[in-house]
Amino acid sequence: MINVGIIGTGAIGTNHLRWLSTRVSGARVAVLFDVDAKRAAALAEGSGTTLGASAKDVIENPAVDAVLIASPGDTHAELTLACIRASKPVLCEKPLAPTSDECRKVLEAEVAHGSRLTQVGFMRRYDAGYRTVKQAIDAGSIGEVLVVHCVHRNVSSVPSYTSDMSFTDSAIHEIDTARWLVADEIVATTVIGVRRSSLAPSHLRDPQLVLLEFRSGVVVEVEIFVNCQYGYDVRCEVVGSTGVASLDNPTTGALTRSGARSEPVPADWQVRFGDAYLVELQDWINGLEKGAVRGPSAWDGYAATAVAESCVASLRSGLKTTVSLIERPALYA
Amino acid sequence: MINVGIIGTGAIGTNHLRWLSTRVSGARVAVLFDVDAKRAAALAEGSGTTLGASAKDVIENPAVDAVLIASPGDTHAELTLACIRASKPVLCEKPLAPTSDECRKVLEAEVAHGSRLTQVGFMRRYDAGYRTVKQAIDAGSIGEVLVVHCVHRNVSSVPSYTSDMSFTDSAIHEIDTARWLVADEIVATTVIGVRRSSLAPSHLRDPQLVLLEFRSGVVVEVEIFVNCQYGYDVRCEVVGSTGVASLDNPTTGALTRSGARSEPVPADWQVRFGDAYLVELQDWINGLEKGAVRGPSAWDGYAATAVAESCVASLRSGLKTTVSLIERPALYA
Amino acid sequence: MINVGIIGTGAIGTNHLRWLSTRVSGARVAVLFDVDAKRAAALAEGSGTTLGASAKDVIENPAVDAVLIASPGDTHAELTLACIRASKPVLCEKPLAPTSDECRKVLEAEVAHGSRLTQVGFMRRYDAGYRTVKQAIDAGSIGEVLVVHCVHRNVSSVPSYTSDMSFTDSAIHEIDTARWLVADEIVATTVIGVRRSSLAPSHLRDPQLVLLEFRSGVVVEVEIFVNCQYGYDVRCEVVGSTGVASLDNPTTGALTRSGARSEPVPADWQVRFGDAYLVELQDWINGLEKGAVRGPSAWDGYAATAVAESCVASLRSGLKTTVSLIERPALYA
Amino acid sequence: MINVGIIGTGAIGTNHLRWLSTRVSGARVAVLFDVDAKRAAALAEGSGTTLGASAKDVIENPAVDAVLIASPGDTHAELTLACIRASKPVLCEKPLAPTSDECRKVLEAEVAHGSRLTQVGFMRRYDAGYRTVKQAIDAGSIGEVLVVHCVHRNVSSVPSYTSDMSFTDSAIHEIDTARWLVADEIVATTVIGVRRSSLAPSHLRDPQLVLLEFRSGVVVEVEIFVNCQYGYDVRCEVVGSTGVASLDNPTTGALTRSGARSEPVPADWQVRFGDAYLVELQDWINGLEKGAVRGPSAWDGYAATAVAESCVASLRSGLKTTVSLIERPALYA
Repeated sequence: MINVGIIGTGAIGTNHLRWLSTRVSGARVAVLFDVDAKRAAALAEGSGTTLGASAKDVIENPAVDAVLIASPGDTHAELTLACIRASKPVLCEKPLAPTSDECRKVLEAEVAHGSRLTQVGFMRRYDAGYRTVKQAIDAGSIGEVLVVHCVHRNVSSVPSYTSDMSFTDSAIHEIDTARWLVADEIVATTVIGVRRSSLAPSHLRDPQLVLLEFRSGVVVEVEIFVNCQYGYDVRCEVVGSTGVASLDNPTTGALTRSGARSEPVPADWQVRFGDAYLVELQDWINGLEKGAVRGPSAWDGYAATAVAESCVASLRSGLKTTVSLIERPALYA
Repeated sequence: MINVGIIGTGAIGTNHLRWLSTRVSGARVAVLFDVDAKRAAALAEGSGTTLGASAKDVIENPAVDAVLIASPGDTHAELTLACIRASKPVLCEKPLAPTSDECRKVLEAEVAHGSRLTQVGFMRRYDAGYRTVKQAIDAGSIGEVLVVHCVHRNVSSVPSYTSDMSFTDSAIHEIDTARWLVADEIVATTVIGVRRSSLAPSHLRDPQLVLLEFRSGVVVEVEIFVNCQYGYDVRCEVVGSTGVASLDNPTTGALTRSGARSEPVPADWQVRFGDAYLVELQDWINGLEKGAVRGPSAWDGYAATAVAESCVASLRSGLKTTVSLIERPALYA
Repeated sequence: MINVGIIGTGAIGTNHLRWLSTRVSGARVAVLFDVDAKRAAALAEGSGTTLGASAKDVIENPAVDAVLIASPGDTHAELTLACIRASKPVLCEKPLAPTSDECRKVLEAEVAHGSRLTQVGFMRRYDAGYRTVKQAIDAGSIGEVLVVHCVHRNVSSVPSYTSDMSFTDSAIHEIDTARWLVADEIVATTVIGVRRSSLAPSHLRDPQLVLLEFRSGVVVEVEIFVNCQYGYDVRCEVVGSTGVASLDNPTTGALTRSGARSEPVPADWQVRFGDAYLVELQDWINGLEKGAVRGPSAWDGYAATAVAESCVASLRSGLKTTVSLIERPALYA
Repeated sequence: MINVGIIGTGAIGTNHLRWLSTRVSGARVAVLFDVDAKRAAALAEGSGTTLGASAKDVIENPAVDAVLIASPGDTHAELTLACIRASKPVLCEKPLAPTSDECRKVLEAEVAHGSRLTQVGFMRRYDAGYRTVKQAIDAGSIGEVLVVHCVHRNVSSVPSYTSDMSFTDSAIHEIDTARWLVADEIVATTVIGVRRSSLAPSHLRDPQLVLLEFRSGVVVEVEIFVNCQYGYDVRCEVVGSTGVASLDNPTTGALTRSGARSEPVPADWQVRFGDAYLVELQDWINGLEKGAVRGPSAWDGYAATAVAESCVASLRSGLKTTVSLIERPALYA
């Protein structure tokens, strides 16, 4: 039984808490902390979970075997570093850090520690649809990958959402899955200006396109549109030299009424990726039971943040922007 | 150039008139007749088509090379017989006649004439989707045919529509396509009572199921539902020993809005089978230009009517009812 | 933490063991028994699960909170009765018993006990696709249910599979889901003879059709075809007075190669319903943690077996066969 | 009856000849010319069509009411100009001319003539799928158009196919349909380098991406891949502020075998757009019968060529390239 300490109980932390408490085998949530103490207390009540006094307290609590970080992104690096110092396995929600510099510090600490402790919460790698696409690529079913087309759409954005966040918060998922599917690193990004939706907040460039260029020449084209109104729509089409593997919205059937046969588009990320989060958590726990840390690594977190930074630079300059990664430490080979 | 005489200008006759006048190569509508003289005159106006004084007049008019019968079903046999007497090719809308006795008279007349003149308007055989299914079967792609599932649904029925007409007017299309796809004759039918839709007229059994049994043991199961509210929905699934060929509603894309990705269901038969009627007419004309009469024959018309009669008998008795066909004349081998 | 004892470790028992050990929150497998002691020992090895000396031993073991019966069907009733005598919650794989008489004994014992202990393993009720269909019906999205079309196909049958088992083993799932979706009882069944596949074993009638008639007049038509060669294909189409809800094979995308865009058909029940089994088990455990037994009841098990018996009688006689259920005890209201 | 003269009998000219001779109402092919006199003679034989001595001869032949130009692209402008001089309606296959300068001469001549004579053969505007997308946009069903994603794939390229032709021959169709769907002009293009398929000829950049920017800011992203191996795959997704309209490959059903449910991808343009060519020709003839020239105009031909030129310049420079159009003459308002 792995005793998990959770830091942060926003939407995603609460989701993790629920899954770990009611759906994941071999785990229990031992300690919980949120800066909003009331919320944490309400969530802990009657669950056998104790409240931590601080994030540090959760990490250092001897009853905690592993830590799940779901606090705001700007706390991620510091907290992950604390976990590494405490030699505790940590599942850190994406991004590993808002800047690649901070991510690098995590890499350095983990390399110094000598083995992996960190998994980054890129849950899409655990989605059944993405796994099917990955298997098709790896089995050679579509030949060599040449181009990938992605869309990432949300119903609407919260007021605090900025044009930068299209890359740092949204497209960072496509950045990670593209790196994983293509099994290569991104060397340049180009953000493309597009006609603004009149339904997007006036401060926001929405939708946006971005081109991700890999060392091999593969180009991944991503549309991010966070005010599409109609649903949470994440799809991709991987074009190979002999065929195409595509990820569509999962469907189980249709409803035919009033002149149309329709299949639902997921309402939000919880509907679409709820199962992926569950599989991610179970795999994390199953690994820990064997003493293994696997899944997206701190390197993956670093590379994704570096690419997102490049996107933001391209958004500012309007130009193609290169991505410079440090040499990949042997730990992440 | 084939000069066509049209008898009957209801919905289907008007459709044929329009296709022959504006879309079919090698044909013109020379003469037109309808018992509603005003309607016929309005349709003929400014088109270069003359008005016939009667159906007989159309058939016997020396300027008419071929006759298209689209008048009410109870006139079909008599008019087709008149065409055979006049040695003129005739495309008779389904049914060839409301009773198999009348159909037999047409068969006898055509056999006496010594060559085919009659084509029956089972247009589904010209539909791209049905042709694809037929090709899959004939290519052996699904092995031997074992079972077929069909649905035939309409938005709503006209007041004059009766429970019998579910078979004589609607399912007669499935009867014909099943005979064509399976390439065998139906030997028994069983109508199955089903919960009545509260939205169907109170005099109507709707929906209904019917089982069509072939000599080979193949069973075709058909649902007829003429008040389904949502669209004109004709589909089938042919189950073979190694695979399945299915006919769905034709689609060319989708509209994604308000939480759903939807594909339209056709509104009515003109939307769904408009192209099939066009291909049917063009094939009829192209055949006539070479002196050939092909397509669904008077035998097909007879067999379909005989099976529909059996369905009506089964509806009355509640029992499985056999279908007894006369021996197939060599002309239709 | 619920300590589960498992009886029977064939394909399904092994699947349950794996899920309970590695995917279900709040449960552990405490004791295991199989008549094949070696197999049980191999499965238990290194897992912390002890071996029971007999099924009875598992049931009576004080360390066992709840029992999962996955032994052959003819042992189900006796073992379930033993669980009831021991006042232990039991998840009994379908069928509850091969005969309705035996099922009735379970009902009587449970009624005498005064509260529900038994859940029957009709896992389809936990499948995401079926739940979506159920919700559409219950939300009134398709009006009143009138007709249901189902197919249930397997790649091939094992040598011991008989024509009766098409109903008692295969269609019993459709019988249960139909009862659940329609929320009514079946009053008659009619098995329909169909052309035999030449690829089916010679002793087998395969495929077969069966019509299930409900009190309300709803008819559920089921095709069972256990040697379809191409995949494990379970679908249904629920036809209501205003629309249609359909269950298709779940898809997450497609592979486009060599002239075709294709979506996989599941290879077998584990691929298709693996998640449903997982959700079923988790729901069983979550219920037990609250002291509740929910899900398909002994009544559902009894009714399904009674209907399957009727199908077998209809298969023998070739006639429509009525289903006579005892009055539903208040416990199952 | 419109008497058509055809110039050029390659694949497309032969297709037009066949359609006009056997499927189009109100037209006949009066005269035929090809530089390969034998081919022309073989096609004309037994059809009642006479052979022209030259392209000029066809155009000036008083028995010819309208001219269809299907000769190589570099002859299009000169022949179209000859038609305008002869005051004869002309359907010129795309491109109107390989250079925008030549196109401009056609515009000038037609403007001087004072009314439209020219239709350019952008047949996709007559495709049922594209028309459905256009209607959705024009009906406001997806709000304002913001981004469009297109793919245009062919099985393989002929040896003479060059990287430029990806734009001048292939993407020119997307250029025209995008202008038509978006109802605006393209002001800039950017060609994006992509990993080359190892199955493409070594002289060819394939696949390629191109971004088409409209005055309104709409961006149309097009993938051209002429050696995709698996089929002729033309699709697009129009993203609006409230929804998405998508064009997929037309389907009429599926074949389920060997573990997969598959829908065919068209083998080539004749399979995919055969009907569009037929509707195009019929609409051309129906217009001429009323004295009207409609459909894609010389302006559309000019604009498409100017954009394709810009793409070629961008391919050479690797930079975004602007498109400068002359002012649109009132004739094309």
